[in-house]
Amino acid sequence: MLKNGFNGTGVEAILKEANVPKGSFYNHFPSKEEFGLAVIDQFRADIHAVIGPILADRSVRPLTRLRKCFETLTDRFERNHCTRGCLIGNLALEMSGQSESIRHRLAEALRQWIDAFARTLTEAQQAKAIPADLDPRRLAESLVASFEGALLLGKVTKSPEPLTNFVTLFFGRILTKKAKKRVQGSTRS
Amino acid sequence: MLKNGFNGTGVEAILKEANVPKGSFYNHFPSKEEFGLAVIDQFRADIHAVIGPILADRSVRPLTRLRKCFETLTDRFERNHCTRGCLIGNLALEMSGQSESIRHRLAEALRQWIDAFARTLTEAQQAKAIPADLDPRRLAESLVASFEGALLLGKVTKSPEPLTNFVTLFFGRILTKKAKKRVQGSTRS
Repeated sequence: MLKNGFNGTGVEAILKEANVPKGSFYNHFPSKEEFGLAVIDQFRADIHAVIGPILADRSVRPLTRLRKCFETLTDRFERNHCTRGCLIGNLALEMSGQSESIRHRLAEALRQWIDAFARTLTEAQQAKAIPADLDPRRLAESLVASFEGALLLGKVTKSPEPLTNFVTLFFGRILTKKAKKRVQGSTRS
Repeated sequence: MLKNGFNGTGVEAILKEANVPKGSFYNHFPSKEEFGLAVIDQFRADIHAVIGPILADRSVRPLTRLRKCFETLTDRFERNHCTRGCLIGNLALEMSGQSESIRHRLAEALRQWIDAFARTLTEAQQAKAIPADLDPRRLAESLVASFEGALLLGKVTKSPEPLTNFVTLFFGRILTKKAKKRVQGSTRS
């Protein structure tokens, strides 16, 4: 489903991959849509197992934690030969117009990530690591949206470069105190 | 296809919508994949008709032209009740693992947009409207990727807010001389 999408993955192919007898699918799931919701929940749990511990590690500075999340996800993407990407993002574009229950479940997953990143950005702001006039919540939304977009470009070009480009732009240009440093530099000169 | 994706749009539904007799589909297209390629080309031409004249208008400053492109595309998204998004982005996530010819055609379309934006960013740089150390090509890639990601979040939440958030972040934070202005402000103070 990660590689071929929801409609590109037939129930028969799922049964074959899972090595379970034909006909047993509907004993477990009332519909393919319900199966899709379970797959979304599983993917969300998988990603939480990756980024949860990184974000919770208070011994590391907030921005370093955030950056490590995206670098770890970029590594995963590259290990899978840039073919899978994010199930939530993939289904968001494929299924939002076809199933309201899937759309709501996807929105919920994205919201959870945005909330987690917004909390870390608030910590960064309290530590004066990012400018005080940035809105942590809107910034977290932009991080999630732009990373999903980088995955999209990475999937279509089969390259991790849009993802490293994303990390460089956000952590080199936006989530920095660079502007402040420049001011100090100028004052000294 | 914009709303329901490639696999979610049956040939029968296409014929019904186009009001042409059953069976005539394969007189025009050897396969549904070939039809998909034609739809991609048509969408690309539609977008070019929107952004081409905006980017070509040299009477307007380069960054203002760029911003107008994204604001115009945001308006289109909102007019369609935030349900369609970008066909190129939608198919990129759905079809990249399923059809190499579709993946290549999508990459080509994205590449064309990146090239056009990179040219405008180079103009902006020559006019000293953005910092000299920004790479116009990488920045254009980020613009396209992040806008596709904003459309993704907008489609799943049925809201134009991620798109206006994108415009505010890129044109308010990244594509500005703000850092320089702050330096000047500080020097004067």
